[in-house]
Amino acid sequence: MSSADRKAQIGVTGLAVMGRNLARNFARNGYTVAVHNRTYGRTRELVEQFGGEGDFVPAASSEEFVAALERPRRVLVMVKAGAPTDAVIEEFAALLEPGDVIIDGGNAHFEDTRRREAALRERGLHFVGAGVSGGEEGALHGPSIMPGGPPESYESLGPMLERIAARAPDGTPCTAHVGPDGAGHFVKMVHNGIEYADMQLIAEAYQLLRDVAGYSPAEIADIFGRWNEGRLESYLIEITAEVLRHTDAATGRPFVDVVADRAEQKGTGRWTVQTALGLGTPVPGIAEAVFARSLSGHAELRAAAAALPGPQTRDGGGRMAPDEAAAFAERVERSLYASKIISYAQGWDMMRAGSEEYGWHLDLSATAAIWRAGCIIRAGFLDRIRGAFTNDPWLPSLLADPAFAKELGEAQQAWRDVVAAAAAGGVPAPGMAGALAYYDALRSDRLPAALLQGQRDFFGAHTYQRTDREGTFHTLWAEDRSEVRA
Amino acid sequence: MSSADRKAQIGVTGLAVMGRNLARNFARNGYTVAVHNRTYGRTRELVEQFGGEGDFVPAASSEEFVAALERPRRVLVMVKAGAPTDAVIEEFAALLEPGDVIIDGGNAHFEDTRRREAALRERGLHFVGAGVSGGEEGALHGPSIMPGGPPESYESLGPMLERIAARAPDGTPCTAHVGPDGAGHFVKMVHNGIEYADMQLIAEAYQLLRDVAGYSPAEIADIFGRWNEGRLESYLIEITAEVLRHTDAATGRPFVDVVADRAEQKGTGRWTVQTALGLGTPVPGIAEAVFARSLSGHAELRAAAAALPGPQTRDGGGRMAPDEAAAFAERVERSLYASKIISYAQGWDMMRAGSEEYGWHLDLSATAAIWRAGCIIRAGFLDRIRGAFTNDPWLPSLLADPAFAKELGEAQQAWRDVVAAAAAGGVPAPGMAGALAYYDALRSDRLPAALLQGQRDFFGAHTYQRTDREGTFHTLWAEDRSEVRA
Repeated sequence: MSSADRKAQIGVTGLAVMGRNLARNFARNGYTVAVHNRTYGRTRELVEQFGGEGDFVPAASSEEFVAALERPRRVLVMVKAGAPTDAVIEEFAALLEPGDVIIDGGNAHFEDTRRREAALRERGLHFVGAGVSGGEEGALHGPSIMPGGPPESYESLGPMLERIAARAPDGTPCTAHVGPDGAGHFVKMVHNGIEYADMQLIAEAYQLLRDVAGYSPAEIADIFGRWNEGRLESYLIEITAEVLRHTDAATGRPFVDVVADRAEQKGTGRWTVQTALGLGTPVPGIAEAVFARSLSGHAELRAAAAALPGPQTRDGGGRMAPDEAAAFAERVERSLYASKIISYAQGWDMMRAGSEEYGWHLDLSATAAIWRAGCIIRAGFLDRIRGAFTNDPWLPSLLADPAFAKELGEAQQAWRDVVAAAAAGGVPAPGMAGALAYYDALRSDRLPAALLQGQRDFFGAHTYQRTDREGTFHTLWAEDRSEVRA
Repeated sequence: MSSADRKAQIGVTGLAVMGRNLARNFARNGYTVAVHNRTYGRTRELVEQFGGEGDFVPAASSEEFVAALERPRRVLVMVKAGAPTDAVIEEFAALLEPGDVIIDGGNAHFEDTRRREAALRERGLHFVGAGVSGGEEGALHGPSIMPGGPPESYESLGPMLERIAARAPDGTPCTAHVGPDGAGHFVKMVHNGIEYADMQLIAEAYQLLRDVAGYSPAEIADIFGRWNEGRLESYLIEITAEVLRHTDAATGRPFVDVVADRAEQKGTGRWTVQTALGLGTPVPGIAEAVFARSLSGHAELRAAAAALPGPQTRDGGGRMAPDEAAAFAERVERSLYASKIISYAQGWDMMRAGSEEYGWHLDLSATAAIWRAGCIIRAGFLDRIRGAFTNDPWLPSLLADPAFAKELGEAQQAWRDVVAAAAAGGVPAPGMAGALAYYDALRSDRLPAALLQGQRDFFGAHTYQRTDREGTFHTLWAEDRSEVRA
């Protein structure tokens, strides 16, 4: 049968590493996959290198590509977010017919996805913005996939995504229809924000173990290795141990000591915080992580501050005695775990707020379920979050789940000690300190927000409410300081 | 002379409290002021109530208003930001002639101001987005005014603004041409972000003095009163003492205890953080303040967390002994002052970044100068910032100024103690803790950002740089872990 006769169940256009690996994943799972790229060389290369893995239909033009697809056609677009995505969507939308499906598997901003979905819906096409997490390896062997868009599109597309997705330990595939229009990309964005926070907290734990306890990178690798067997078990903890254990071949020094300490970012963390600000959801854990990365890259600010003094070391510094260090490491584990609960709580708050704002009816339990494997933040922990929202779909905050609340209560004293030790020791721990402040603020009976309201009423007549009766009030500060109803 | 024959030097349209008070301020300074409002009742009311203060020309229609103005006409628009501002600008732009000036004195987003300025420039009109700070009282008696827009517009407008603006202690007016297009509203936005951070830090200081030291609101009012005679001298510290000293007449309780502890916000703080994220400037101090406000308003989250445990009090709680409390208050003053330097440093970093991004050539010394009086963050402190940027216009960070660096060094031990006490005591102090973490991160020789880069290279082949040679590298983590050039 010639390639022109074979009909592909799915087409992938854009064959950079993510697109290529997703195409291979579909083919390895028995699907016939049409493949297309702006330059044909890449298409040919894919088929030459990996043609033996399954059934590929290389297409030299977009017309040939569309002709190779069975109907309704499913076109997975894997190109750069922004203008290139718009251009490719437009190119294919012109060739497709009502009922066909365009899937954007890139890292689009969910507002762009909403706009595109609305525009394509007008033209009778289904548009699915699908978050894909797991990097190159995940794309090939099983990513976590977060498709949004019209529910009808999931009927034919869903089973295919379920075949190529990662599987949670209980065997269920790590994909589900997340919600309408931009819901998939929104949820992927929050995933990335949580990933930023997770990585920042791990980085702080590492620095504390090194600078306060005096452990070497190899010793810290062992500690992370042990943590990975407990409640912190996760892909990020696992690879942290790997990175810390690695020795640089060129110098014989710990790898982490030869890497330039300027963290880069691609923008989804920033989007998460910008969006949370718009929604009015406090996500300081994610914000501190984004700022810590950008701070690390500001060479001119760091040079300006390099001479500023650190704490007076009271005991001459050096490493702690082994027992003391081990006890401190135990407290750091508690602090890391408690802070992690806080940042996940903030992420879920944000999904709840987004769901309300956009009318998505997100299933907060399902989101946890599809992150249990395949994605960067995959961890046993996610199954516990799934359980919390399965037990109570209306759980107002992860902190209200009895099991997490109990753990926070057990961790809090160690957490306080670690935050205090970081402050005393001059080790920056904005993630852990911010998480503790969030915990303490949220559980506070009275917040100094009352003073702020008083200040605002004083300088701007912004009014205030009272604790003891209904209404809005203003004090005549510049006159006799009597109170009037506003 | 009938009102139709008098020519006004300026017109104010939109006579809610800010517009009315600015109109009165111009009139009291000897200008003839045309006044106009969508509904004539408000215009008539102004002239009836305040006509004796100066020379007003009430206009019943926009045509009459425009006809009353000398040329080039200067129209100050004081209406709600957003669509109402666009509508009013459009209404008047149609009636004006090339060379006339429209001034938007509302709280517009600087991107809207950029858009409007570009559109009006096409039509030969000058558009000045002017930040105005100082609230109602400032508008009447002398605000801080931050006009952007074309420099030519300042030639005729500037002297008028200088007449109505506040005056710094050295007698210079608190206004200056800030920069092109949206520069004025940008700078006003940053002012508000700094104001949020200032208020949050003050609120934390209050809570620490109350919950850790055990002082009463009246005693804390006295402490703030004393601080207001030192280096913290500022309008916000002054009014904090006033608010804390105030007793609620209805209950006889401290006013701060009867005000509902839900802080409100109008959005400029949020804009500041969103913009800083876009610019890549770390402003965690402002972000923590914005999030603390939004957290206070989330009743459902607070209810969910209300039962979470606080620290074990080791000594039964209660107030500190007088000596101990006084020493703690002294440390809180240092912590507040150091944290304040940090948040102002972040604000100035952001202005530098905005200036570069938009090509504004902001004078960072002049910004400090025009905030010395009239605005909400007015303080002696601003004159020191003015001095720092006058001494070195290329100062890379406020932390690099020798005087501020010295003070930070002197404060740091107390600052660490206070952040540790907050963590131990269960008092949320995200502003102070975040400021200290920022200080410690910026002065760090090595940041754990190196570990982040290692993780990113591991899971996403995002590559890294090395400390010992040029180039971009990738480790083959899934293979033999050798390093390749990327």
